[in-house]
Amino acid sequence: MKILLGKIPYIYPIPIALLGANVAGKPNYATVGDFGLMGINPALVCVSLHRDHYTTQGILENGTFSLNFPTTAMLQVTDYCGTFSGRSVDKSTLFDSFYGELQTAPLIRECPVSLECRTLQNTLIQHRQIFIAEVGCAYVDDAYLVEIDGKKQIADLTHLDPILYALDNRYYSIGQPIGVGYKETKR
Amino acid sequence: MKILLGKIPYIYPIPIALLGANVAGKPNYATVGDFGLMGINPALVCVSLHRDHYTTQGILENGTFSLNFPTTAMLQVTDYCGTFSGRSVDKSTLFDSFYGELQTAPLIRECPVSLECRTLQNTLIQHRQIFIAEVGCAYVDDAYLVEIDGKKQIADLTHLDPILYALDNRYYSIGQPIGVGYKETKR
Repeated sequence: MKILLGKIPYIYPIPIALLGANVAGKPNYATVGDFGLMGINPALVCVSLHRDHYTTQGILENGTFSLNFPTTAMLQVTDYCGTFSGRSVDKSTLFDSFYGELQTAPLIRECPVSLECRTLQNTLIQHRQIFIAEVGCAYVDDAYLVEIDGKKQIADLTHLDPILYALDNRYYSIGQPIGVGYKETKR
Repeated sequence: MKILLGKIPYIYPIPIALLGANVAGKPNYATVGDFGLMGINPALVCVSLHRDHYTTQGILENGTFSLNFPTTAMLQVTDYCGTFSGRSVDKSTLFDSFYGELQTAPLIRECPVSLECRTLQNTLIQHRQIFIAEVGCAYVDDAYLVEIDGKKQIADLTHLDPILYALDNRYYSIGQPIGVGYKETKR
């Protein structure tokens, strides 16, 4: 039997990223789950933040941000970045930050994969500032590249070891590979 | 060392949903990974589809769609819905469909959780039609509700058993709970 729970956006699992932006000239990082892939070619993503969020200022100012994917070994610092605002704590020295081609989107060296993004559109719906952005460049740590059929590719998710989340307020790890896209139908 | 991979939107993991829409008066389902949570209150999501996708017509026509989260036991039919277009195969009888309050967004009874959504805005970026929508209602199968502290809540992700995906074209299962939101900092 189906139970109606009302207006609950129970998407799951929610991937967790550290969103990087320069605010007042310094790197700031906020833990986010409110983002998604919007297309591969063109390479599009979208992110939603509270209008009054400290990081939002930086994105509006620079038109750039980054999405950095922590490993489960980084759970504590990831939770910290989601608990405390950049207004009250300085998060600029928590990670080894670097900059890429866009110059104003701080990236996290400790993360296996980081995406440098440039905003294309932003929309305000009530207090949510929603940015649609294109990915300028993906940065991958060479420790997470594997050679498959003579080509360097990003390792599977069991190596990338991401942090997942759900609206039950729990963090989760990734499980095992269970199939191949566009191949399961024929099996 | 960081390797630059260019314009690759390597968000991970990618949650997998069956997007439901009425097209030409019949339920149609497309497997999607291009969506994300955009806020809890207001309950917002966004979805991106190819402009020429069969399902896109239905969403534009009705202003409604659903997001249904399959279990790993539904991997084969989920892969099928992502492989074949509603233009060439009839997907209306693959699932036990039902309708909720919005009346035109078909929901899948076999999925533990379904979200009924109403579009608020749509934007075209190149060939990508991006819909921002509000969740009208979440439907949960009572087999996936648990009682915690006297309150009915949605079971943890190991019970919901979702299908995940990555741009390495592999499907994955969920792992284990590894922590609690806003609590890990203090441990």
